Amino acid sequence: MTYCLGVLLEAGVVMAADSRSNAGVDQVAHVSKQTLISVPGERVISILSSGNLATSQAVTSQILHDAGKGHAGTDVKACDGLFEVAGLVGERLREVTERDARFVEPYGDPTASFLVGGQVRGEQPRLFQVYPAGNFIEATARSPFLQIGETKYGKPILDRTLTHASALAEAAKLALLSFDATLRSNLSVGAPIDMLIYARGSLAIDGLRTFEESDPYWRDLRRAYGEGLAALVAGLPPPPGMP
Amino acid sequence: MTYCLGVLLEAGVVMAADSRSNAGVDQVAHVSKQTLISVPGERVISILSSGNLATSQAVTSQILHDAGKGHAGTDVKACDGLFEVAGLVGERLREVTERDARFVEPYGDPTASFLVGGQVRGEQPRLFQVYPAGNFIEATARSPFLQIGETKYGKPILDRTLTHASALAEAAKLALLSFDATLRSNLSVGAPIDMLIYARGSLAIDGLRTFEESDPYWRDLRRAYGEGLAALVAGLPPPPGMP
Repeated sequence: MTYCLGVLLEAGVVMAADSRSNAGVDQVAHVSKQTLISVPGERVISILSSGNLATSQAVTSQILHDAGKGHAGTDVKACDGLFEVAGLVGERLREVTERDARFVEPYGDPTASFLVGGQVRGEQPRLFQVYPAGNFIEATARSPFLQIGETKYGKPILDRTLTHASALAEAAKLALLSFDATLRSNLSVGAPIDMLIYARGSLAIDGLRTFEESDPYWRDLRRAYGEGLAALVAGLPPPPGMP
Repeated sequence: MTYCLGVLLEAGVVMAADSRSNAGVDQVAHVSKQTLISVPGERVISILSSGNLATSQAVTSQILHDAGKGHAGTDVKACDGLFEVAGLVGERLREVTERDARFVEPYGDPTASFLVGGQVRGEQPRLFQVYPAGNFIEATARSPFLQIGETKYGKPILDRTLTHASALAEAAKLALLSFDATLRSNLSVGAPIDMLIYARGSLAIDGLRTFEESDPYWRDLRRAYGEGLAALVAGLPPPPGMP
């Protein structure tokens, strides 16, 4: 399983993915689920993937293969905005599904989902979720985060605390807390977390971080949050009329 | 959708269910998902259900119909311990599934799940989860809570704070926080929450509570928790090296 989170902020975009791949019980590997495409000063695109690893890798590999070749409609570096990039991911996904799905289905689920976030010069930062059907939706200021994979455990903390107006560093912190909730409740999602912290207008990848389980900041954050939450809950009164 | 939670404590059992039933967009009703059977001084049994409402009601209605009739194997009031009650629920579920499932499948999922908790004189308090297949598992001191339905949003808070040694009132409070997380993240789970707070050895239903959305205690609890969590998170440092 996988957990990927994309956050759309006034200040930029945060794109985070765990790195556990589970292809059967005898093979648990770490795989990068974040594909980065950048033309400094011109565009930064992050593609996060969940679902069938062969399917998602076929999609991103083809997109990387065609990048920079200059063919309209297939070159991610020539796409006219992030909407077109999301459409390209959806098209590639449909092609792979058309070709492979019926062969894969006897063995497992062939589908995959993607988050596509970043900025192309001349646009605001944008964030999309591409469904297994190849269609897609866009994040907005009112629903500023999108999730794919094992999404539920890490959603309540975001629902309570994250807004479009949150600062980049604040969103990065909340993303780590959301991943912590997911990792605690589901063993199939695993560290390290790959996180792009993209500042609006920078049009450069300079905020790419990998948080290992042993990362001192993340470790201290987890401990402080866990202790703080325990103290908070312990201080709340029990229902009235109970012994 | 539904969220049901059973907690097995040294001090007793907490059984909680939301009351939203969604049978199509034009019919959102409140339904009791908690079936109580008690023989004061002798046994208290709570059955919580999720899944197809016709299936789960067929199961509990048949069990209530046969209760007290004294027929071995079908009378829940004659079952020799809670293990046998869980087995009876599983048997009834298999009968309903055998009879109805193929007719229901064209319209939706016919399956249902149950939590069975309480105490029969001569035993400790016990808690079981009955799967759609009719087989079942038991909660233990090391995994003291079981959930059915929309389980994931409300799991992290329990993973962090609930133990077998928690007091009854503490567990009731944590259950309400778990439901709050679920209600916030999923509109298909709805108040009021029906909660049995059963004290070990009492062998009586005297801790049955209904928490409406407007319940002053629950409202204050939600607000205090939300504000406390926001303050806690705001006080945690952002990742180092960020503006």
